[in-house]
Amino acid sequence: MIILPINYSKSEGVKEDMNTKTVRISIIGFGNVGGGTAEVIRRKREEIAKKHGIDIKIVGIADLKGVIVNESGLSEDAIMKLNTGEKPADMTTLEVIKEVEHEVMVETTPTNVENGEPGLTHIITALESDRHVVTSNKGPLALQYRKLMQLAAQKGKELRFEASVGGAMPLISLVRENLAGNGIISIKGILNGTCNYILTRMVEEGLPYEHVLKEAQERGIAETDPSKDVEGIDTAVKLVILANSVFDRDVTYKDVEVEGITDITPEALKLANDAGYVIKLIGEVDRNGCQKVAPRLVPKHDPLNVGGTLNVATIKTDLAGDITVIGKGAGPIEAASAILSDIIGIYS
Amino acid sequence: MIILPINYSKSEGVKEDMNTKTVRISIIGFGNVGGGTAEVIRRKREEIAKKHGIDIKIVGIADLKGVIVNESGLSEDAIMKLNTGEKPADMTTLEVIKEVEHEVMVETTPTNVENGEPGLTHIITALESDRHVVTSNKGPLALQYRKLMQLAAQKGKELRFEASVGGAMPLISLVRENLAGNGIISIKGILNGTCNYILTRMVEEGLPYEHVLKEAQERGIAETDPSKDVEGIDTAVKLVILANSVFDRDVTYKDVEVEGITDITPEALKLANDAGYVIKLIGEVDRNGCQKVAPRLVPKHDPLNVGGTLNVATIKTDLAGDITVIGKGAGPIEAASAILSDIIGIYS
Repeated sequence: MIILPINYSKSEGVKEDMNTKTVRISIIGFGNVGGGTAEVIRRKREEIAKKHGIDIKIVGIADLKGVIVNESGLSEDAIMKLNTGEKPADMTTLEVIKEVEHEVMVETTPTNVENGEPGLTHIITALESDRHVVTSNKGPLALQYRKLMQLAAQKGKELRFEASVGGAMPLISLVRENLAGNGIISIKGILNGTCNYILTRMVEEGLPYEHVLKEAQERGIAETDPSKDVEGIDTAVKLVILANSVFDRDVTYKDVEVEGITDITPEALKLANDAGYVIKLIGEVDRNGCQKVAPRLVPKHDPLNVGGTLNVATIKTDLAGDITVIGKGAGPIEAASAILSDIIGIYS
Repeated sequence: MIILPINYSKSEGVKEDMNTKTVRISIIGFGNVGGGTAEVIRRKREEIAKKHGIDIKIVGIADLKGVIVNESGLSEDAIMKLNTGEKPADMTTLEVIKEVEHEVMVETTPTNVENGEPGLTHIITALESDRHVVTSNKGPLALQYRKLMQLAAQKGKELRFEASVGGAMPLISLVRENLAGNGIISIKGILNGTCNYILTRMVEEGLPYEHVLKEAQERGIAETDPSKDVEGIDTAVKLVILANSVFDRDVTYKDVEVEGITDITPEALKLANDAGYVIKLIGEVDRNGCQKVAPRLVPKHDPLNVGGTLNVATIKTDLAGDITVIGKGAGPIEAASAILSDIIGIYS
């Protein structure tokens, strides 16, 4: 393996003291979320060192664009050059994960719900190489949750995935930490911002589905192939992560009953509206085995009635009652915020 | 000091193993919240031992009704008898805090915003006796926050107070843990369920303030002397806890600009409604020094528009955007849920 020399900018250093621990990370997958993570670490590195006592250094980035590595920490310059294809190191992604010394592998390659790859192999390799893993990638979690958690436990490492469900909206950690001691009865919510945007606009404008979908595509809110969102697959995948992590199941997204929003008409929305309801694509999982995704009537005054691209979840508990959390479900900086909290969480 | 013999019911035992740590607690103040905490521990002890590896034993309870102590753990029977005045131990509250061996003192005496007592002395004594403190008592935090946190830091102990703001609604821990890495720009919310109930009912029924207040008193939602709630003092006290803990200030509730809801008329609410707004008593604190409580216009579609006795807070952050959390702000079991999460949080 050859690690090419990369400029290391001294200006970005954080003053080390006895109370600061260096945490070296790799970022595998350097699209929106991976790039957002690097950007957020650039902005926040000093503040995090001061507040949380950890100095996060990016020592490797691997992407289809190439691989860059510097065991003392990549400079901003080097990271920027990756995007222009300059100075890639002569290593494969798996070599970065295995051979570059680091503590946390951040996996942000795109979700693949067919076989979970390449994320699945990245995560397994990182855990086997004794690294903690923080990921936004839903595929491996939706397909092999239990196997991955068992591997993490066996290696004494953490596998955290707050960014995989609800973007910046804290949900996994909310249930596990803030509501520790509570029995969770159910979780119900809007977990896909694209569907919420389409339904919100259909109500506001009285326009048909196809028309609003086109608008959403033009605004970059829906993808060119919107099927995973509008058919409820994305919501189902997130629901599976909740089912496995909160309710200790061992299911995949194929075990979820799914109905999307493609058949909802402006007339149905109007009828609902006249009766005091909105229609939302709701994912629901409960402790009795229910796990389904379907358009549901939501009373207008219910906390679940949030508009635009917002995500929301209501957690029904046995002690705290209903707790609702609302936030942005997507966006590179928002997802990076969740990744950052997960990294900090490992060390606090 | 004489510790009276108290029946110890073997049936409530949790099987100890190498992974279970015994955590002995005292409950100081045995009203709604203290009683709720004992009840919640009774219900959840085994589950918590299994899930979180800690076995919580109540070894002392002190209240105006009397004091009971058993260093091996109080039985349900003994706890029930306290309520009937039977078998009090011959100790003072401060002796329980100082002399009974335990790890966590749970302080749930009523809030006193004049001088913070007796809670202030209880908390100082517990920290000086090397015990962690978990409290729902707003008085000491609103008056002596910095001094208490410094004492805790100096003793290497934790002082946690999730239950003091927003009841079961996670807010303090949400900001500190789930949103770690985020800069907090502002927190804005409805932090008093009584005011929210009154304003919600005034809108729904078009009735004047006095009428709805009376209804709220009859339903046990407002106190006989409702002034602390309706004049905004309770909200201000909670805001001070947020200002000090999240924004690192050193203020007391006297530093908060406060206006209550007593002058709001059904006509004002109707005018707001016609323009697409509701009026809510909003507490707001931001990083630029603002800390105020006042009735504010809230757009009907804003996540802050929640009805009834619900509490809500929107946290504006630099990375995650706006995160809103909604939950029950009051109730003995709800407050106990927050206390329990705090106890578990100390050990995880």
